[in-house]
Amino acid sequence: MRTTAEVTLPVTLDRTDVRPLPVQLAEALRRLILDGWLAPGDPLPSTRSLARAAAVSRGTVVAGYDQLSAEGFLTAREGAATVVNPRLAVVHPQLGRTRPEPPPAPPAASVIDLRPGRPWTADVATAGWRAAWRAAATNPFGCDVVPAGDAGLRAALADHLRRMRGVHRPAEHVLVTAGAREGLAVLLHALGRPGPVGVEEPGYPSLRRVPARLGLSTVPLPADDAGLITSALPEVGPPAAVVVTPSHQYPLGGSMPIERRQQLLAWAARHDVVIVEDDYDAELRYTSRPLPALAALDDPDDGRVVTLGTFAKTVGPGLGVGYLLAPARLLPAVLASRTDLGQPVAQLTQRALAHYLDSGELRRHVQRMRQLYGRRRRLVSAELAGLRHGRVYPVDGGLHGVIETARDEAEVLAAARAGGVLATPLSAHWSGQREDRSGVVFGFGAVSEADLVAALRVLLAAIDG
Amino acid sequence: MRTTAEVTLPVTLDRTDVRPLPVQLAEALRRLILDGWLAPGDPLPSTRSLARAAAVSRGTVVAGYDQLSAEGFLTAREGAATVVNPRLAVVHPQLGRTRPEPPPAPPAASVIDLRPGRPWTADVATAGWRAAWRAAATNPFGCDVVPAGDAGLRAALADHLRRMRGVHRPAEHVLVTAGAREGLAVLLHALGRPGPVGVEEPGYPSLRRVPARLGLSTVPLPADDAGLITSALPEVGPPAAVVVTPSHQYPLGGSMPIERRQQLLAWAARHDVVIVEDDYDAELRYTSRPLPALAALDDPDDGRVVTLGTFAKTVGPGLGVGYLLAPARLLPAVLASRTDLGQPVAQLTQRALAHYLDSGELRRHVQRMRQLYGRRRRLVSAELAGLRHGRVYPVDGGLHGVIETARDEAEVLAAARAGGVLATPLSAHWSGQREDRSGVVFGFGAVSEADLVAALRVLLAAIDG
Repeated sequence: MRTTAEVTLPVTLDRTDVRPLPVQLAEALRRLILDGWLAPGDPLPSTRSLARAAAVSRGTVVAGYDQLSAEGFLTAREGAATVVNPRLAVVHPQLGRTRPEPPPAPPAASVIDLRPGRPWTADVATAGWRAAWRAAATNPFGCDVVPAGDAGLRAALADHLRRMRGVHRPAEHVLVTAGAREGLAVLLHALGRPGPVGVEEPGYPSLRRVPARLGLSTVPLPADDAGLITSALPEVGPPAAVVVTPSHQYPLGGSMPIERRQQLLAWAARHDVVIVEDDYDAELRYTSRPLPALAALDDPDDGRVVTLGTFAKTVGPGLGVGYLLAPARLLPAVLASRTDLGQPVAQLTQRALAHYLDSGELRRHVQRMRQLYGRRRRLVSAELAGLRHGRVYPVDGGLHGVIETARDEAEVLAAARAGGVLATPLSAHWSGQREDRSGVVFGFGAVSEADLVAALRVLLAAIDG
Repeated sequence: MRTTAEVTLPVTLDRTDVRPLPVQLAEALRRLILDGWLAPGDPLPSTRSLARAAAVSRGTVVAGYDQLSAEGFLTAREGAATVVNPRLAVVHPQLGRTRPEPPPAPPAASVIDLRPGRPWTADVATAGWRAAWRAAATNPFGCDVVPAGDAGLRAALADHLRRMRGVHRPAEHVLVTAGAREGLAVLLHALGRPGPVGVEEPGYPSLRRVPARLGLSTVPLPADDAGLITSALPEVGPPAAVVVTPSHQYPLGGSMPIERRQQLLAWAARHDVVIVEDDYDAELRYTSRPLPALAALDDPDDGRVVTLGTFAKTVGPGLGVGYLLAPARLLPAVLASRTDLGQPVAQLTQRALAHYLDSGELRRHVQRMRQLYGRRRRLVSAELAGLRHGRVYPVDGGLHGVIETARDEAEVLAAARAGGVLATPLSAHWSGQREDRSGVVFGFGAVSEADLVAALRVLLAAIDG
């Protein structure tokens, strides 16, 4: 028998789950007992301290304990700690008697999800994170909404752009958005929903759907792993705007060299095209410092680059905040569009994020994540070194990798799925005339290292047949 | 000399202010000394406790105290509390020597803003509010975003609709939005941006701008203080959708009677029109229980009423959360639109609001606000009883009132502004053919009772000339 420090009990409750919290809690504790993590006679935390640790009411914990006592898993003792029933083996003779190590995660039958775009969020809720939200929730709740976003957050974002992306602009050029898609919608409305929107081919399907949803046609423009192929840009009938990923072409993974950047800017100037820079994960670089954002080459006043930034990859998509950086000449129209459509980001979220940025906690988190993803990137290289029938694209940044496969991608993905691994077909990133290129796009952000290794082995076997 | 309990020091710092926090803190304390609120010899709170109370770092307080010590306002004593300089009158002889009551708010020269639509938010940040955000910030930060919104919040919203609005629908019919405008945009995109959108005339200018921004024309449909005049609805060339405020016509203030509701539903069924119910402040009723939402009369599966709810009036526009309730037949299109455009509301905000709703704190807050606004409504009646050259519309709910004026509204508003009071012209609520009706729309939510009385007297004098 040992003392159970409450903080070590791995109980996670999900408020988005339809099951009531006491039911979830009872289920989690039952699982810990069944897995041998808690043994007969082990004391449980007090209801008060477990309630605090799990951020639920004490009544929830009492109800969960009561349920398990009724089932014979726990024994409540007047005036003393509740313990795992010392006579558990009598009441539930089918349970094993040995104490294994903590339950392996995930259970054997589960699926490892390597679909790309999802970061590692388990380490977001640090003390600095909680302090930011606490400060925001304690501050007086104001009554006014600033369409462009709170001044404090805009200043913090301008500072972030300076430090992380090499772009020096006043805070007034930065607008708070709910993310890249929301920012793109505001921008396209600001431009009066202009003609066709050029998109990289291959490119990011999710962002491509925004102009389509707004009733604008999209024009695929060929890209390779160095970004948009600027020599192939149309000199006749150019689109009104073009969405590009110069820092990290999605999905192929390269960075646009300076020559292409200059060619793109010159082409856009010739044809009066607005360049939308989707700067979705540039902060995550493992081999060298990233090039500054494309906006750094643009004129702050009369320019034509609008940068869409996000914290979806550095913090998590659930943060629901991004930003839009526009040159001065476009600001009035963007502000008018934002004013008409409303500021979707809660005041409290804006204040918490400003605190998180100002305190340096975002930078520390990104630094930690760079190290974590860097380790995973090395695992990916090591595991895929044995690939025989395919080509691995270099992974210099971000959260995903690409493997071109000799075997048809549909067969590869079906075999991987049969082995419990989900990934995404490379062809899904072409909108129109699909190239004859089979491949797999896989993420390495949201899974543990053990899962990553296991999943890559399944994937490798599926590719090499 | 007396002891200064730190909790009574009225120091409010604004994170959205561009000035650094230590500068703001020094300014606030300097003001308290200049106003006599803190007298020579009075001890200040410890840096630690003031830091906690003001939710800033201790370094901020230390820096603020240092600044004021350098200016001669404070005296730091080794190992003892910092005090207001006992020799203040010597250092700053221009300061008065008497101690007045706490500084009057607002300063004499300021403006009282009676523009409508702003609630009283000073009492939002209760212990229950902070607990909701604390729980949300402590929960593990998940990696996935659910386009429709977190299941826990959707369930809480369905419960809210049942209790507060008499609408019994499953949680699956409720989507989380960033507010009414965002919900309207998602809906109009879901409907494929259909033909013209009917709007009430007079009506709410802000919501009217959403279809315009999406490139849809709006058709003004005559309304009076009992809502849309259903007998005047067009039988030829009807709009594709119509936005109405059946619970509380904006701005005239009445509730749509049941006969008109049934006529509206029958007309919409005849012409296959989608009815958008803008349910912006129905929770705030002072004279009787509100009628259930229009959606309660509609078919949950094959119906045509889409209700847009918001917490902008019950909590504050800065919360940035609302909801959309749709009948089953429209859900797939709405969900597809939401999926393409992205869920703008942060996961953490959703969880905090679910907690706030589930704990009953929202209901308690609304109850407190009903009492507070009820008192103000009585003040409004009492103050406006003496009006000679105008007509006051009944205020049965909400946060604003309407006065029809004999004097031209532009003159009235200019005279009020000269007296330091801001309000809104009634004519601004007509989009097209303005009726020849002069008037003033004024809010009574966001100002103190003393300010409200003072401002109404200025307004009354402006109207009666």
